[in-house]
Amino acid sequence: MTTPSADTLANDPEYRSAIVDLLALLAMGELLAFERLAGDAALAPQIEDSVALARLAAAEFRHFEDLTRRIEELGADPTQAMLEFRRPLDEFHAHTAPSDWLEGMVKAYVGEGIASDFYREIASLLDEQTRALVLRVCDDFEHQEFIVDRVRLAIQEDPQIAGRLALWGRRLVGEALAQSQRFAAEHDSMSVLIVGGVDRPGADLAEIGRMLARLTENHARRMAALGLAA
Amino acid sequence: MTTPSADTLANDPEYRSAIVDLLALLAMGELLAFERLAGDAALAPQIEDSVALARLAAAEFRHFEDLTRRIEELGADPTQAMLEFRRPLDEFHAHTAPSDWLEGMVKAYVGEGIASDFYREIASLLDEQTRALVLRVCDDFEHQEFIVDRVRLAIQEDPQIAGRLALWGRRLVGEALAQSQRFAAEHDSMSVLIVGGVDRPGADLAEIGRMLARLTENHARRMAALGLAA
Repeated sequence: MTTPSADTLANDPEYRSAIVDLLALLAMGELLAFERLAGDAALAPQIEDSVALARLAAAEFRHFEDLTRRIEELGADPTQAMLEFRRPLDEFHAHTAPSDWLEGMVKAYVGEGIASDFYREIASLLDEQTRALVLRVCDDFEHQEFIVDRVRLAIQEDPQIAGRLALWGRRLVGEALAQSQRFAAEHDSMSVLIVGGVDRPGADLAEIGRMLARLTENHARRMAALGLAA
Repeated sequence: MTTPSADTLANDPEYRSAIVDLLALLAMGELLAFERLAGDAALAPQIEDSVALARLAAAEFRHFEDLTRRIEELGADPTQAMLEFRRPLDEFHAHTAPSDWLEGMVKAYVGEGIASDFYREIASLLDEQTRALVLRVCDDFEHQEFIVDRVRLAIQEDPQIAGRLALWGRRLVGEALAQSQRFAAEHDSMSVLIVGGVDRPGADLAEIGRMLARLTENHARRMAALGLAA
């Protein structure tokens, strides 16, 4: 499979506009992730955990700044571009408000994990410069390993919570899928990128199938890492 | 007035320990400011304001990292050093929880302003290296000018809120003074720094009086900038 070239970004307005949308979606996601993680930091029982979560949040905000700078370079207004993504992302967060700190941790780990995987899959279909930016933005996931420790320790101390947290993990995925589908039905920029265009290669159905399989497998792997049934 | 030298930091354990306390107080303050500003960002009605507040919060976290790194260089454990400052700062924030976004903005502007002024005053009494760090950490205050615009605009649209916000500003100062006095009565590291030691210069009573006068004047100036009676 070949990917779009830098020329495509310069000469194909449909592709360019889809890239602006993708970066704006990512940027809005990073801004909201910043706010959630900072909120979790404020709730953390231990100063060390507050600090670790605040550090993650600050990293998300650096990504946000990188993304909005790139949107400006592409000649678009970041705030305008982000506006349409605020409602679906806000709704996702409103429907998945954690009831305690542990649920917040599972949400951060599982949610950021799926989102990063999804963007990495899309990245493989993009021009080189956009791909490098998207991969860099998704790169900080390993810093979340301390969350695995906290959740496993909590389950060790009280094995009963594993069932509740496993259910919670399934609800997060269900809600993410519901919001994505609703959004995709109203907007076609993601399908422009995934399926391709007249002069632009994209993924065929078999590739999309394998992509979804990888997303599902990685999610199950992360739930297992937390000690939870997927 | 002369100030302590780098030798004082190396050879005077009382001074060194007071410096660790000061940096830990600053660090804990920055971490909590990060959490509050990020919380305000999540409540901001406009994306632009969310972004501006998130940027401020991220800057506070960078200061936090600088401060904890320095505490480690001085041979102390930052988490341990910060622990005793968590309760008074948490209590200050618990007693001054904003009831809406505007109160949050006034609190950020007035609270950060007084805190920065206080630390700048203390900085003038410190060894050169510590002074440079403290001044750098207090340096970002000018980025808060957008808060002035928001508050003034809100008062222009509804002049009645000026009275409520002015009262709120007075309550913030009163609560800050109450917590500081309670804390100072239990801990003497700040007075070690301000008053000095046997081989170490400090501020005399006249200087302390002028310091308090400057803090009060600056506070009144900030309230006036917001369009509020001090």
